[in-house]
This record gives sequence, C-alpha cells and structure tokens, in this order.
Amino acid sequence: MSVCIFCKMVAGEIPVVRIFEDEVVLSFLDIGPISDGHTLVIPKQHFERLHEVPGEILGDICRRLGRIARAVADGLSFEGYNVLCNNGKAAGQLVGHVHFHIIGRNIGDGIFDRWPSYKYTVGRAEELAAKIRKKL
Amino acid sequence: MSVCIFCKMVAGEIPVVRIFEDEVVLSFLDIGPISDGHTLVIPKQHFERLHEVPGEILGDICRRLGRIARAVADGLSFEGYNVLCNNGKAAGQLVGHVHFHIIGRNIGDGIFDRWPSYKYTVGRAEELAAKIRKKL
Repeated sequence: MSVCIFCKMVAGEIPVVRIFEDEVVLSFLDIGPISDGHTLVIPKQHFERLHEVPGEILGDICRRLGRIARAVADGLSFEGYNVLCNNGKAAGQLVGHVHFHIIGRNIGDGIFDRWPSYKYTVGRAEELAAKIRKKL
Repeated sequence: MSVCIFCKMVAGEIPVVRIFEDEVVLSFLDIGPISDGHTLVIPKQHFERLHEVPGEILGDICRRLGRIARAVADGLSFEGYNVLCNNGKAAGQLVGHVHFHIIGRNIGDGIFDRWPSYKYTVGRAEELAAKIRKKL
C-alpha cells in the first residue's frame, strides 16, 4: 500500500477535484490554493523530484502542461499564470511526488511579488557556470 | 532583425554565460540571479508564453530541464531547487520569450517563503474546476 498521498489520489483512494486525467498525468485542484483554480499536474508514476523523471515521461507531462495552463487562465479569466515545480523541502516541496503548480495571476494580486535579485561580482558567473557544466 | 533580447542571445548578438545549448534550447545564467547559479532555459524558437509552445517542442524543452536542474543543484551543492515559468506581466514575466528559471535553494534562504494559501468555501472548488474543464 502506498503511503504517498498523491499516489493514493492516482489510485482513487483519496478524492480529488479533477481537472484532467489520462494515462500519463492526473491534474486536480490544490486543496490549499494561493489563487482561485490553483491546479496541480502530477505524473501517475511516482518520482520524487523533477530530475528523477525519465526524459521521455517528463516530456509527456510537460506537453500536457501548456494545455492545462491555458484552460486555467482562460476558464477563470486570469491575465497570466505561473508554472512552478518545487523540488526538495528546501524549495517548498511539501509532498514527495513531483508536481507542477499552475497558479493564475492578475496584476497587483501580491502573490510572489518578492524577487530578491542581485548582481554577480566580476568572474563569479563564469566560475559558477563552470561548476554547473561539469555536472551536465 | 529581432527585437527580442532572448532571440538576440540565441543569435549570438548578445553574450551569455552559457550552461547548455543544442538544437532545441539555450540555457544560460540569469544576469539578475535570486540564487547563485540561477539558470534560464529557453526554446531557441520564439514563443511568448508556455501555452503557445507546440506540445512536441514543449516536451523537448522539458526533457532537457531535468538534466540541467540536476546539474545546477549538484554543481553548486543546493539542497533543492525551484523550476518556475512566469507567463504574462501579471505573473512576473519580464521578457516576452518563454523561459524556465532554475533556482537553487537551501533551507532558510528566505526566497519564495511566502505561500498565501487559503481554503475554498463549500462547492467553490467544483464550480472553478467546471469552468477550467470547459476550456480544455
């Protein structure tokens, strides 16, 4: 028996307010929305984080993301939307089954209004990029 | 001549600190990072928003996202990461060429720590879901 709450939703053991379902994904309303119609899209198969999802399956999930995001924005007349995938507790991932949030947005709604950007010192960007490229 | 800053980067007319490049995507460091190694992944072809990207191309982009996200997290020893795609000015999209942010995260870093969730009144979730499903 699965102990993952999202796997239980996929199995029909926990009810959801369904948006879309096919062989690859289940999409349903987040029960703790930060915006009306806040929708989740999850793979039916269990993976914890985005980078653990095989490329083919990740591609299949994302091909459905655009269509569902458009429906959230059009259906509820939002001016824009965020697609967000939190990976790891440090990043705000509360359920250990990879999921994409679709969050409808309007000007001035005050959601995600903090963007604490800064500038790199000379040479720092190249140094960081070299470390990242080594792990590709 | 393109007036899109990201198209100019793809064309090599504006320099980038490159992370990865192939026939589908260009990935480079954000010049205004909110976390060290803050990386962008963009399709080489110009689309403004996620839902405007044809499914096949969106799938191809996302298949590369996992690999690049893992490299950011592993290369810079982050505990987690966010993948974020802002669509429309209302959602914080500053450049009108679809892009995915990969943002490395550590516990207590204070980035995106605001998550103003609420609960739906009885029947409200079903009402919203019906409006969204109509647009699928």
